Amino acid sequence: MAENDKAVVLLSGGLDSVTALAIAQNQGYECYALSFRYGQRHEAELMASQRIAKTMNVKRHHVVDLDLSLFDSSALTNHSIAVPTEPTDKIPVTYVPARNTIFLSVALGWAEVLDAEAIFIGVNAVDYSGYPDCRPEFIQAFQSMCNLATKAGIEGQAVKIHTPLINMTKAQIIQSGVKLGVDYSLTVSCYQATRGGLACGQCDSCKLRRQGFSDAGIDDPTRYQ
Amino acid sequence: MAENDKAVVLLSGGLDSVTALAIAQNQGYECYALSFRYGQRHEAELMASQRIAKTMNVKRHHVVDLDLSLFDSSALTNHSIAVPTEPTDKIPVTYVPARNTIFLSVALGWAEVLDAEAIFIGVNAVDYSGYPDCRPEFIQAFQSMCNLATKAGIEGQAVKIHTPLINMTKAQIIQSGVKLGVDYSLTVSCYQATRGGLACGQCDSCKLRRQGFSDAGIDDPTRYQ
Repeated sequence: MAENDKAVVLLSGGLDSVTALAIAQNQGYECYALSFRYGQRHEAELMASQRIAKTMNVKRHHVVDLDLSLFDSSALTNHSIAVPTEPTDKIPVTYVPARNTIFLSVALGWAEVLDAEAIFIGVNAVDYSGYPDCRPEFIQAFQSMCNLATKAGIEGQAVKIHTPLINMTKAQIIQSGVKLGVDYSLTVSCYQATRGGLACGQCDSCKLRRQGFSDAGIDDPTRYQ
Repeated sequence: MAENDKAVVLLSGGLDSVTALAIAQNQGYECYALSFRYGQRHEAELMASQRIAKTMNVKRHHVVDLDLSLFDSSALTNHSIAVPTEPTDKIPVTYVPARNTIFLSVALGWAEVLDAEAIFIGVNAVDYSGYPDCRPEFIQAFQSMCNLATKAGIEGQAVKIHTPLINMTKAQIIQSGVKLGVDYSLTVSCYQATRGGLACGQCDSCKLRRQGFSDAGIDDPTRYQ
């Protein structure tokens, strides 16, 4: 990688995406953070992304407004569906159809505008919620599609999708981030955090996060309700 | 196809998308039209999509607000870049990076919510502007990605992307639409139409359209400035 190459980093404001950002910065990329206001229940996450972008000194942070309220099958975009607190062996109701596909597509367009060579996304297929669009085979298919979708792709310079966390456990993600100086107290993972960013401690995302800190042997800085 | 199966149809309000809608309806699909207010210069196109959705009696028409003003390299989203009137052998400046990828991704999510089996998009790789995301190889790669991106895909029921116009000339598209009763006077193709929907007659999109009516031997109902 040449010095000062650009990367678009999908930044939700949660634990994984901030770690992906820290890794991209550590690899020398000039980072352009991209977040979405998509009608998510947990808007505290978005406020977290703004704190993180400022603290970690990204080159630019853009929040795209995209109303996905028509995706009314998900507990994250339909506020009348309760966030589950019990595990399931199916894809949970917090699944937002095609969310990573949509986010990566907008990142792809922005990367082309910026002439960025990389997109970073903090997907993880180990300690995760079972969403189809977090798996390596999905990312590979998206990469193949990128190579054909854009002007840069046609010219043989398609953007490369980086998924540095994909094979890590939650504990490994946290350990990597701590080594790189990430302040996890800035992040919000909870699906139903209060506007002030207090986590419920009960949802799937809270449980995975809490277990991760415990397994990593690192004090959990999360502010619970 | 079972009777009353659902399709999401990407409806820009132009000549191609309305023809794709007519074809989907003629095949018996219950159609859900999807349009985007993405900061395009030619908002008359969006007003056309609303007229078409109403006249053609779609089941539902949804306009997604998605601000792509950060894609400032395109003459369609950056109003300070002039729309070219001369041909080019390169990808023209009206190219909006990853536009069809983004639109198809949102359509994919809505299709999953609706339990729709099909997405129709009026891309065309014959009389077209040279955009990479209108080519058959792009659509095939997007289809492969769909099969892995969603819950329906995992369950072996991935949505199918239909591109009925992809190998037609503009004249053939118009002839197909006329046979199906499409009223092309409702559509707006011009990249810089007035708010009232009057076409410039000079841009690439106007030229392709005008030539199409001429080649088809059908009176051009376009209202020019």
